[in-house]
Amino acid sequence: MKKKVNAAILIIGNEILSGRTQDKNIAFISNWLNTKCGISVKEVRIIPDNQKIIIENIISLSKKFDYLFTTGGIGPTHDDITAESISKAFKLKYEYHKEAYEILEKYYGKIKFNDGRKKMAKMPRGAKLIYNPSSAAPGFITKNVLSLPGVPSILNSMIENSKRYLIKGLKVHSKTINLYTVESNIAKKLGQIQKEYKKFVDIGSYPFFRLGKIGVAVVTRSTSLSKLKSVNKKIIKMVNFKKIQILKI
Amino acid sequence: MKKKVNAAILIIGNEILSGRTQDKNIAFISNWLNTKCGISVKEVRIIPDNQKIIIENIISLSKKFDYLFTTGGIGPTHDDITAESISKAFKLKYEYHKEAYEILEKYYGKIKFNDGRKKMAKMPRGAKLIYNPSSAAPGFITKNVLSLPGVPSILNSMIENSKRYLIKGLKVHSKTINLYTVESNIAKKLGQIQKEYKKFVDIGSYPFFRLGKIGVAVVTRSTSLSKLKSVNKKIIKMVNFKKIQILKI
Repeated sequence: MKKKVNAAILIIGNEILSGRTQDKNIAFISNWLNTKCGISVKEVRIIPDNQKIIIENIISLSKKFDYLFTTGGIGPTHDDITAESISKAFKLKYEYHKEAYEILEKYYGKIKFNDGRKKMAKMPRGAKLIYNPSSAAPGFITKNVLSLPGVPSILNSMIENSKRYLIKGLKVHSKTINLYTVESNIAKKLGQIQKEYKKFVDIGSYPFFRLGKIGVAVVTRSTSLSKLKSVNKKIIKMVNFKKIQILKI
Repeated sequence: MKKKVNAAILIIGNEILSGRTQDKNIAFISNWLNTKCGISVKEVRIIPDNQKIIIENIISLSKKFDYLFTTGGIGPTHDDITAESISKAFKLKYEYHKEAYEILEKYYGKIKFNDGRKKMAKMPRGAKLIYNPSSAAPGFITKNVLSLPGVPSILNSMIENSKRYLIKGLKVHSKTINLYTVESNIAKKLGQIQKEYKKFVDIGSYPFFRLGKIGVAVVTRSTSLSKLKSVNKKIIKMVNFKKIQILKI
């Protein structure tokens, strides 16, 4: 029987922390894990390109969650220290991965295969490759830690290749009910419904502004489709009772 | 003399973790803190709406950094548990804040000031308000923890009001040099320059794709403008030596 499987994401990169670059990988990975693998992301951390800090986070997050995804820091420059840091975290040798070396040498050609490019073939001993169809340099998995690049278009192109290493879990189903109302108008009743279904369904409520109107998106999430349906029925019943206009279900 | 001041950001919200909502607050807060206050964000965490997890993170991050910003979880519904969790983290009474209560009562009018709305006036004892010019419900500061809402437009409207509580630090200056080259072509030399200036300047390199061309953004960051200038001179010298085309400095 399938069970709940969880993951964490560790974003490694000064450019995201400083606000220079808007992260796009968190939402992408989280959505992909949930819809394609039934894996729920339970924590995300963004940390600087600092070996000591990377090692601490690799150790603690890989222990705490079934899988840990890292993004960033696997390119050819001095600030790309993810592979070396993971090696140190798990006390594994940091060395050339034979197949990765061959892939990169073939891609660049012997003459253009310089030190920077060779660096992208260095990984923790025993790592398995996550193939990269767009720019050759592979990601890799070490124990339960999957390392992907930071550039969103490259990451997106290779995420399917990490699937073979993942145990699939229970999919979390989700339903959104958009209402023309304000949160405080439904807060009490919604709280009661949440209490009743505490163990099975998560109910979230998120205000929005659209076309000059104020609304609330009520989002229900559960691994049980039947429980999700009965919660949504209760919410619709409350909405009708309060004569709230439904924008979209 | 000004010194280095740092901060962490704690994003509280299932909707961000699940990938349903694209976060916009991290880059905004981080940019604002750096440019307006000289404060560097050193860690970001995204966690679910779960009291135990929120409390653990409030305790550890508020100890580890000069300031901790939280976003989300201060609205009127059952999943808004940030204020109560902070109260528990610091063993403070969770109670109505007199001024916040008055602001909200005035804003909604006595008749429409229902339980959900009253909840937004409950805070840890001794909290000081961060005024909200767009939708009344204030944020608040408890010890070194500043709590802001999750809706980006509201957060953006009130961030200036948190300035009075912050000690200003040294501003981090930053310069970006965009080159038409690939990372591995500059990796070695750039690594040498970084080594030489290790203590004073952070050099990051970020590949990009624009108008069908491949490029690298070299970003230098330092609290010292003069050190930044001399690093950038060295980078330009290397670029000229390698006959790399500069796209933009």
